[in-house]
Amino acid sequence: MNPTIELLKSHRSVRKFTEQKIPHELLLELVRAGQAAATSSHVQAYSVIHVTDPANREAIAELAGGQGYVASASDFLVFCADMKRPTEASERTGANVVRGMTEQMLVASVDTALMAQNVAVAAESEGLGICYIGGIRNNPQAISDLLHLPEHVFPVFGMCLGYPAQTPDLKPRLPVEAILKTDRYDADDKQVAAFDDTMQQYYRQRSGGNKESDWSRNLTPLFDTKLRPHMRDFLIERGFEMK
Amino acid sequence: MNPTIELLKSHRSVRKFTEQKIPHELLLELVRAGQAAATSSHVQAYSVIHVTDPANREAIAELAGGQGYVASASDFLVFCADMKRPTEASERTGANVVRGMTEQMLVASVDTALMAQNVAVAAESEGLGICYIGGIRNNPQAISDLLHLPEHVFPVFGMCLGYPAQTPDLKPRLPVEAILKTDRYDADDKQVAAFDDTMQQYYRQRSGGNKESDWSRNLTPLFDTKLRPHMRDFLIERGFEMK
Repeated sequence: MNPTIELLKSHRSVRKFTEQKIPHELLLELVRAGQAAATSSHVQAYSVIHVTDPANREAIAELAGGQGYVASASDFLVFCADMKRPTEASERTGANVVRGMTEQMLVASVDTALMAQNVAVAAESEGLGICYIGGIRNNPQAISDLLHLPEHVFPVFGMCLGYPAQTPDLKPRLPVEAILKTDRYDADDKQVAAFDDTMQQYYRQRSGGNKESDWSRNLTPLFDTKLRPHMRDFLIERGFEMK
Repeated sequence: MNPTIELLKSHRSVRKFTEQKIPHELLLELVRAGQAAATSSHVQAYSVIHVTDPANREAIAELAGGQGYVASASDFLVFCADMKRPTEASERTGANVVRGMTEQMLVASVDTALMAQNVAVAAESEGLGICYIGGIRNNPQAISDLLHLPEHVFPVFGMCLGYPAQTPDLKPRLPVEAILKTDRYDADDKQVAAFDDTMQQYYRQRSGGNKESDWSRNLTPLFDTKLRPHMRDFLIERGFEMK
């Protein structure tokens, strides 16, 4: 296992940070490393908002469901899918531009995620800790207002970055045999059952025997209600009509 | 710049590979490194199909728009957003599961992309070359049929992997000042204009003066037609209704 693969496999979400600040030049370098990721047809359909205003950091921490580390981490970035820049660039050359296609929403979301994951890896390679904040989609319109996001731009997730003040246990993943399939999709119920045992032990151990759950049971709050039911209308409102 | 950031910044898409095959144990290791990426609420909403059948490799190369390297690379993976596994796992615990939410489509697409980007970085750290194949979305239903993808699973993109037989020039990226914004979104037309100059020089140099284009002009085929207009109905058909 080479050091880069070792680094990738040692990822954990960090939610406690020291007071130490990330030098601005390093932050720029992390974002440049992000930009080096593959991008669909070179479209680079993303923008990153570096939230430095303390009041906005506090506001976003609340809007994301009370995640205090959004305010306390050295830095907080909001990764946005951005179809404004490329469509307007094309428009300025005289093209008659089509917007709002489902494909464009997908391209921009994937471009943004590839880019962000490179930022995460680059950060961890410098000894920083990171935590993705999907919770910004709890209140995406309020976040968009705070950051003055224009039409054809939407916030996909946030990321806290800082020098770690904790080293959480590695969280187990599904066995590779469950998710990697040869030539055709096949059932993976057995591997899921085995993974439920793994996660049951993990939760027992971490909670001193107080948390009785497993992977399957833990997913229920995600699926037994309409999680973030506003997302469809929000995206349409932002100009991502999913046509 | 540490070696990992150097690696990230040296990414180029590779489309010509030697005959050398990737050892299966290494491929497994790359996918495990992929799985170590952050995942929204631990949902791990992805499956990866390793396409080994030569006839299917040829078929997918054609369906992706005539990309021969899909067939000739050592390995070809199809990264799928998978909401079948987690929703069925939750259902087996007795939960009354909601499917088809826009949020779930977004979560699964982002989870898949974060995971794939780790696979890409791990591969490159081992001296392999990779190329994302978004072209599989040209014919996503035919690809889904070939791979026997069930409902609530859809192919997001493919990836060719192999030992590189070429070292393409690094492709420039937008200046970091264009995509990284402080506290609020602001205009970046000036940086785009500067980047058009960069790309004009890049195309001239690579084509020996025969290609006259720039970033903005090059984007036009993406936006002046309805690119992949089937995606909406395809996703709905797969059970991603975007409710």
